[in-house]
Amino acid sequence: MMGEKLRVAMIGYGFMGKVHSNAWRGVNRFFPQAPEVEMALICGRNEAALKDAAATFGWKETETDWRKVIARSDIDIIDVSTSGETHAEISNAALAAGKHVICEKPLANTSEEAQSMVKAAADAAAKGVQSMVAFNYRRVPAVAFAKQLVEQGRLGTIYHVRAEYLQDWIVDPEFPLVWRLEKDKAGSGALGDIGSHIVDATQFITGSHITSVSGQMKTFIKKRPLLAALDGGLRASGSEKMGDVTVDDAAVFTANFDNGAIGVFEATRFATGHKNGMSVEISGSKGTLSFTFESMNELMFHDHTLPATEAGFRRISVTQAEHPYVAAWWPPGHILGYEHTFTHEVYDFLMGIKSGKAALPSFADGLNVQNVLKAVEASSNNESKLTKVN
Amino acid sequence: MMGEKLRVAMIGYGFMGKVHSNAWRGVNRFFPQAPEVEMALICGRNEAALKDAAATFGWKETETDWRKVIARSDIDIIDVSTSGETHAEISNAALAAGKHVICEKPLANTSEEAQSMVKAAADAAAKGVQSMVAFNYRRVPAVAFAKQLVEQGRLGTIYHVRAEYLQDWIVDPEFPLVWRLEKDKAGSGALGDIGSHIVDATQFITGSHITSVSGQMKTFIKKRPLLAALDGGLRASGSEKMGDVTVDDAAVFTANFDNGAIGVFEATRFATGHKNGMSVEISGSKGTLSFTFESMNELMFHDHTLPATEAGFRRISVTQAEHPYVAAWWPPGHILGYEHTFTHEVYDFLMGIKSGKAALPSFADGLNVQNVLKAVEASSNNESKLTKVN
Amino acid sequence: MMGEKLRVAMIGYGFMGKVHSNAWRGVNRFFPQAPEVEMALICGRNEAALKDAAATFGWKETETDWRKVIARSDIDIIDVSTSGETHAEISNAALAAGKHVICEKPLANTSEEAQSMVKAAADAAAKGVQSMVAFNYRRVPAVAFAKQLVEQGRLGTIYHVRAEYLQDWIVDPEFPLVWRLEKDKAGSGALGDIGSHIVDATQFITGSHITSVSGQMKTFIKKRPLLAALDGGLRASGSEKMGDVTVDDAAVFTANFDNGAIGVFEATRFATGHKNGMSVEISGSKGTLSFTFESMNELMFHDHTLPATEAGFRRISVTQAEHPYVAAWWPPGHILGYEHTFTHEVYDFLMGIKSGKAALPSFADGLNVQNVLKAVEASSNNESKLTKVN
Amino acid sequence: MMGEKLRVAMIGYGFMGKVHSNAWRGVNRFFPQAPEVEMALICGRNEAALKDAAATFGWKETETDWRKVIARSDIDIIDVSTSGETHAEISNAALAAGKHVICEKPLANTSEEAQSMVKAAADAAAKGVQSMVAFNYRRVPAVAFAKQLVEQGRLGTIYHVRAEYLQDWIVDPEFPLVWRLEKDKAGSGALGDIGSHIVDATQFITGSHITSVSGQMKTFIKKRPLLAALDGGLRASGSEKMGDVTVDDAAVFTANFDNGAIGVFEATRFATGHKNGMSVEISGSKGTLSFTFESMNELMFHDHTLPATEAGFRRISVTQAEHPYVAAWWPPGHILGYEHTFTHEVYDFLMGIKSGKAALPSFADGLNVQNVLKAVEASSNNESKLTKVN
Repeated sequence: MMGEKLRVAMIGYGFMGKVHSNAWRGVNRFFPQAPEVEMALICGRNEAALKDAAATFGWKETETDWRKVIARSDIDIIDVSTSGETHAEISNAALAAGKHVICEKPLANTSEEAQSMVKAAADAAAKGVQSMVAFNYRRVPAVAFAKQLVEQGRLGTIYHVRAEYLQDWIVDPEFPLVWRLEKDKAGSGALGDIGSHIVDATQFITGSHITSVSGQMKTFIKKRPLLAALDGGLRASGSEKMGDVTVDDAAVFTANFDNGAIGVFEATRFATGHKNGMSVEISGSKGTLSFTFESMNELMFHDHTLPATEAGFRRISVTQAEHPYVAAWWPPGHILGYEHTFTHEVYDFLMGIKSGKAALPSFADGLNVQNVLKAVEASSNNESKLTKVN
Repeated sequence: MMGEKLRVAMIGYGFMGKVHSNAWRGVNRFFPQAPEVEMALICGRNEAALKDAAATFGWKETETDWRKVIARSDIDIIDVSTSGETHAEISNAALAAGKHVICEKPLANTSEEAQSMVKAAADAAAKGVQSMVAFNYRRVPAVAFAKQLVEQGRLGTIYHVRAEYLQDWIVDPEFPLVWRLEKDKAGSGALGDIGSHIVDATQFITGSHITSVSGQMKTFIKKRPLLAALDGGLRASGSEKMGDVTVDDAAVFTANFDNGAIGVFEATRFATGHKNGMSVEISGSKGTLSFTFESMNELMFHDHTLPATEAGFRRISVTQAEHPYVAAWWPPGHILGYEHTFTHEVYDFLMGIKSGKAALPSFADGLNVQNVLKAVEASSNNESKLTKVN
Repeated sequence: MMGEKLRVAMIGYGFMGKVHSNAWRGVNRFFPQAPEVEMALICGRNEAALKDAAATFGWKETETDWRKVIARSDIDIIDVSTSGETHAEISNAALAAGKHVICEKPLANTSEEAQSMVKAAADAAAKGVQSMVAFNYRRVPAVAFAKQLVEQGRLGTIYHVRAEYLQDWIVDPEFPLVWRLEKDKAGSGALGDIGSHIVDATQFITGSHITSVSGQMKTFIKKRPLLAALDGGLRASGSEKMGDVTVDDAAVFTANFDNGAIGVFEATRFATGHKNGMSVEISGSKGTLSFTFESMNELMFHDHTLPATEAGFRRISVTQAEHPYVAAWWPPGHILGYEHTFTHEVYDFLMGIKSGKAALPSFADGLNVQNVLKAVEASSNNESKLTKVN
Repeated sequence: MMGEKLRVAMIGYGFMGKVHSNAWRGVNRFFPQAPEVEMALICGRNEAALKDAAATFGWKETETDWRKVIARSDIDIIDVSTSGETHAEISNAALAAGKHVICEKPLANTSEEAQSMVKAAADAAAKGVQSMVAFNYRRVPAVAFAKQLVEQGRLGTIYHVRAEYLQDWIVDPEFPLVWRLEKDKAGSGALGDIGSHIVDATQFITGSHITSVSGQMKTFIKKRPLLAALDGGLRASGSEKMGDVTVDDAAVFTANFDNGAIGVFEATRFATGHKNGMSVEISGSKGTLSFTFESMNELMFHDHTLPATEAGFRRISVTQAEHPYVAAWWPPGHILGYEHTFTHEVYDFLMGIKSGKAALPSFADGLNVQNVLKAVEASSNNESKLTKVN
């Protein structure tokens, strides 16, 4: 493949399809060191919508049958941006066919599926075929920089993790029953959709794993109007017929990390006023780091080794060229946004292919996150009893 | 007693004694509508230190035996500002002697003691003798105003409570074994000392009770130097001999409220960079309120009934004359501090005596908080199993 | 006077009288090292109101004629808390009578009066009689700490001063014509009342003087209802008759400092949403300090000598015992309020008397601030031409 | 041209070239309603660098002579992203040749040049050829939304404008003499480069014009090392030879608006800790709006018509689909960055071409901003005397 472009096919064209398309389109423009890609093909079931997406997002061909895509010899990378229940089948087939796979989170809706994916990934890796699960928040420069500070020992012994992911888009009981509220499609609700991000982010930053959890899950609104129309993104309108909400509206849990730290976690779609309020704070003996997504260009850092009279949380504008990913973009203080995290993700994925050393998080990392969520659910179903993560 | 001053005796002269003294000294100066008080007597065991405290804080007499104080007929009010293990004995004796009692939190170190106090309070109340437990954070104007907004229905159905009380004063392993780290004196550690405040504050603001909890408690540093000298407040220095820390450094728990809300709580003395970081956020269907003590003159309010384009958390400067307690003080924007909460507390207590209707929180409220903490501890000792609050 | 209390008489009993009373009452309770004071006498013209103030604020005697107060041999300190047009006469007489004088800002309404006061202060100083003008914001711990950092060279060469004092209490055109809006009583409007504070604070922190200014002054609402009733503080109600506003509603100016820095200043009572928004930011080659009164317990500090990847504004909670004035009060994170600045002021004044070395700011410092304001007014009346400060 | 793509040629390939390229590349992907564009050609003097830029940014052809570009019949739009001294010549030639022109700010380095451009634009407009000057900050959704709120009368009578643009990239005296510090290339320093943005933004939001100014300009570091190498963006390294800085490091001014408001402005490259600190606050009788670029997804709004107990600055996350430009992007709370403002700008420009009604700001608006800056400079050279804007 030397000297040629890597040809990408993306399965899915919803919200994630839009943001992934932007990443594939821009990655070579800002990261010329990455292998060149060609946005070859977009795949989905609704042909009309698909044609429209191809034109809007800038993909050359369309195809309604993902199996045919995988069968093609001129595709190098499969981007799995579908809903969770299809991840395993598509990813496993693609890996078996020798395609590099980048798969949206959560890795899968069930633990069994996720395990099959880890196996498929290992088999493929043995043949030089790479895979990655797409936890994009790792690619926020401030989050990546936080990890660096922890690795440098700047927090000392880590004692506390506090993390929350607060949204409010379904607080209105009239908001309809979209696929994200159906267990058979989404796997779980707030826990899997957004709780997974804070589990991954806190494990990533601390470099430590959650060993046990005690959780509670809640469904505040148990019936909702069936879906009439989806307006894209997280907006929708409802019909008059009602259906059952089969996933959690909110999940809360406490957690133990293998480094001895203790954590509190909250994931909810019922926190009015919080739109995409993904926040992580890590406290150690030498300092505390605090991050909140809606101010994603900033990292708050309290350096406890400074004199007490001078110490305090400082707002680091993570927009210096020396910060992770930033040199590719703009001068200091010229901030980045949500979509950049996907460009960084695709960049890392491509550099993994180039170097032969696959970028993280691996499918195994994705399975680990699923296992944490599974333990939260098991604990919630067992009177919150402390439950080990397998 | 008409036309005469209420004569106050305070038992204890430490950090709480200092701040209570300030409250007794100032209450009539800022709240002329309250009954007049006389700072008659201060009581403690160390005579020299006591004389010094009397002079500094402005008390007329001193006495080393609290029983003699209670026996005096010229004392109307007993202020119990001692450490927790003595609260029950002193308060019960004072109430039996017909003295109004204001007692520092936690109400007592054991549930049995707390129950005896509730009984003593009830017996005394039947004779017109009043009692109150001193959860001062209820008297932050912003907290009292938050409660008003909830009572007016401004939050709608309450779904979420998130509360934390973060300090960092013992993160250094060389910090010595002060009485607050000894179970026989302090009852518990972070949980009882500061966790109690967020339990009271969230129940107060929401007007709802915690029905069950699932908790974990941690002691990160298990041995510390024995205490050499106490410098006052929360500062101390250590000796070379080591002793066991017998209380928790941190406690985390999830909770269910009787209004259907779910909560996450964290109380710790190991959150570097947070000095007195008592924070409470309540999310309901119509809005979210957020408060953090280090900015105690502000209340953040997201009104979800506003158009989505205009809604957002607004920083209300709770310094208008119409806000609770504020008319007594300064013009808008001229902020208050920590000590004012105690002046407000004493004011409410005095107005209760004046009106015959005792101010809250009652000893029963104090017992309720203790029961929540007890359930957290029981859950922590039972694999975090969800535990009912009695 | 060895071993005896210093007897204080306060002239005036309005808003400033209330907050000064609190300072005199508390100073020995929190700063036992200061000479002991006795709140001997309060003086004002309206006898009924005066009696009431004496009882509420805790002064022993009352007197309606300030000349009689000054004539008394048993008074050591005169606290001039009246409106500006009386400062010179009272202060000068008191100093001549050998009383130590603490005088509210602005020093005087006219430059001539202020000059006479500087002379009186110098004459008195020669006899060991002290005087101080009461710019209380110097006594905010964060402001005093800012000055220390500048003195230590932490900002390097200072390039920029930006300061504003934003209020909104007269933005309603129906707000009546209180004395603060009448030139003959108040001297000037926003400029003298609040602009004076930011002139003093920026000169104090930078240790540098303003040498020239270019200003503009504005009166947005030129006629207002005459005053019907004053409710205390900054609240009032109006009658139906209208009168002329004879002072500025707002003043803006640019300034040059003798250290080469350039400044922008704004003082206004028409900045809706800002209650007591006194803010100062100083930028130098090595860092920037930022302070805003409504978060008066915090100092923001950007240390530009840190690596660029780690530097940023840090929120220092100026509540450590090592910070100026703080050891007298509460543990870290237990914040102070507006009134504490006056207690600190009185403490410094008393320590000046004790040591024989008068505390600053002197009457000469007060005159200097008046001269800056005078230059702003002159510039405003002369097409904003750059005007030297005498 | 119906049904065909608009072919764009961009002159310049520096920092602005990079961000403009991104805008042209993405505009049809996110705003499918805009006319389709083709990135036809990029023009610059250094052929090697140009080839590189073309490949990286995604332009089809290159050309080193801008006159040849303008002479081509297959180019519809000229994007002038060069430094200011070339704007007039290129733009005027392009307009005369019937090309639509979008020109970077400042419009020109001299008033004469700017006037010639306004004339060229008027002549072209008569033939249906459009032009726009690129003040990108107008296209921040929060800024555009602020303007809407003002237009709806939500601020009432506007009294105050306070604006600052704070950077710190040349505070180090060793930073070399880049073209932005040379008057013949840059026209002016902080005033023209960043001061122009806050002049445009405040006039845009308020819908009012500055009528007179009183200013001061400063050059703190008068000699710097000559430029050795430019690393892109705002970074550079110096040689050992020194040269004169011929522009201002900082400019401050007060201003009068034609609606009666008064303003304070500061533009500086010496405010340590501020990277791209462009901030605007507008206070009116009914409310205050506050914006700061480093939190560009937020608008602070104090609605003074709310009850005083509830009013306060609220942080509006300007990420709702109903907010200007936002529907094209992501769900609420998924923030945008610096580059998006250019995509919005290009979108508006294209929609102007589509509709036949040219988007603003016009070259006349650009000239007006230049005239304000010229008045500031004239005032600064004339003892800060209040100077009318022509």
